[in-house]
Amino acid sequence: MTKRKPLILVSNDDGITSRGIRALVETMHQIGEVVVVAPNSPQSGMGHAITIGNTLRLDSSIAFETEGIEAYECSGTPADCVKLAKHHVLKNRRPDLVVSGINHGSNSSISVLYSGTMSAAIEAAIEGLPAIGFSLCDYSLTADFSHCLEYVKQIALQVLTSGLPSHVALNVNIPSQTEGPIKGVKICRQAQAKYTENFEKRTDPHGRPYFWMNGEFVDLDKGEDTDMWALNNGYISIVPCGFDMTAYHTLPHLNQWEISTN
Amino acid sequence: MTKRKPLILVSNDDGITSRGIRALVETMHQIGEVVVVAPNSPQSGMGHAITIGNTLRLDSSIAFETEGIEAYECSGTPADCVKLAKHHVLKNRRPDLVVSGINHGSNSSISVLYSGTMSAAIEAAIEGLPAIGFSLCDYSLTADFSHCLEYVKQIALQVLTSGLPSHVALNVNIPSQTEGPIKGVKICRQAQAKYTENFEKRTDPHGRPYFWMNGEFVDLDKGEDTDMWALNNGYISIVPCGFDMTAYHTLPHLNQWEISTN
Repeated sequence: MTKRKPLILVSNDDGITSRGIRALVETMHQIGEVVVVAPNSPQSGMGHAITIGNTLRLDSSIAFETEGIEAYECSGTPADCVKLAKHHVLKNRRPDLVVSGINHGSNSSISVLYSGTMSAAIEAAIEGLPAIGFSLCDYSLTADFSHCLEYVKQIALQVLTSGLPSHVALNVNIPSQTEGPIKGVKICRQAQAKYTENFEKRTDPHGRPYFWMNGEFVDLDKGEDTDMWALNNGYISIVPCGFDMTAYHTLPHLNQWEISTN
Repeated sequence: MTKRKPLILVSNDDGITSRGIRALVETMHQIGEVVVVAPNSPQSGMGHAITIGNTLRLDSSIAFETEGIEAYECSGTPADCVKLAKHHVLKNRRPDLVVSGINHGSNSSISVLYSGTMSAAIEAAIEGLPAIGFSLCDYSLTADFSHCLEYVKQIALQVLTSGLPSHVALNVNIPSQTEGPIKGVKICRQAQAKYTENFEKRTDPHGRPYFWMNGEFVDLDKGEDTDMWALNNGYISIVPCGFDMTAYHTLPHLNQWEISTN
């Protein structure tokens, strides 16, 4: 009896030629049939952007040398890639798992909102597909992913085996290889944090001013159940993320308002 | 005794020359001191994108003819605009209210995730500022906003008077003028919905294929407490939106997992 291999869709936001997606594709190839639809250029910080006033390109890609990898590169955002994969590339082939990453840089805490990597995973969750975004806390383009690939595989296998609650995508962040051996995995909540922005003003050769954004991450959360705590203590953090933004606890308070134009 | 007028920061995602932001600026000018920092080009569907690998421009704008409006146009996304306003333009002047819109088109239900209008409001909420995103359920560039401006003013005054729970931004959606008189205001939760995408494939003059995304909104929610229900029944919907994406109800389930590499 042969069991069908699970179908795994892979995307990211650093672009199809990044080291992170290569590491993820090779790891997923060990446990499933892999189809890649990823941006043809870096899309970091794109949040949940989609392409609505413009056209999209989709081309076959030769980014992966491993045999048996079906790969496409797309001119759009990570969310576009998942939409195109679901509704055009795969059509009636329903993926068993959607993975995004491995991102070069952390997407923990508040960064989940700005993250293209997580928007691909959230987009998959909206489609009712089990989805995981993986990020390494190392922004280097030459980052070493070898210390975490066994964990990446085990987390993917866990989701393939157990499934995920519906409308939830996992935000998985992994300590950098330079932090020493990984201690294990923690299920966490998103730490409360923000960026304090510093805008550096410069003048271009034509005398016009321009700005570089230079944010500094500020962790405002002392809890030991957060993703920041896990990462700062050598653990991989897993935050289950939903996409219902309603702040339910505030509904009774707001319901006392009386707004009219009379 | 003179009381200082409230300081109101205005942004949007349709760009600083849109009719929607003009209607909003004129309405806010009646109740406060207005500073505008808005994109210099349309940014619809940009989600919570920010500009991190590129420079930003910020120029004084003459988009508003009303006297006493301080206005700047920015090359970045709506979230960039709020960050630049907070940390560069306003610096030590803390806004009493941040408003975004009025968007040409609905940002109800799942659209909140893709919305540049709401990302400006959410960015303000992250900064601890009371914030409201306004959207009109009419995509026309020549949409008529006159039927809703008194409501827009009353909602803004309510927030200026009562404040908002911390880390919450209001997602306000308004029925189109063509739907008849507005019946009132409902505090709602975000309806569960999704887009079913249809990608139309065309061929360019050079023989290469390209795609247009053409999403169809699918309301999956039968509740009468949702923003979709309110809008479909002639009411303005107000959803309080947070930015903690943690799906808390799934934590106990996921905590039963045992993931290790041994």
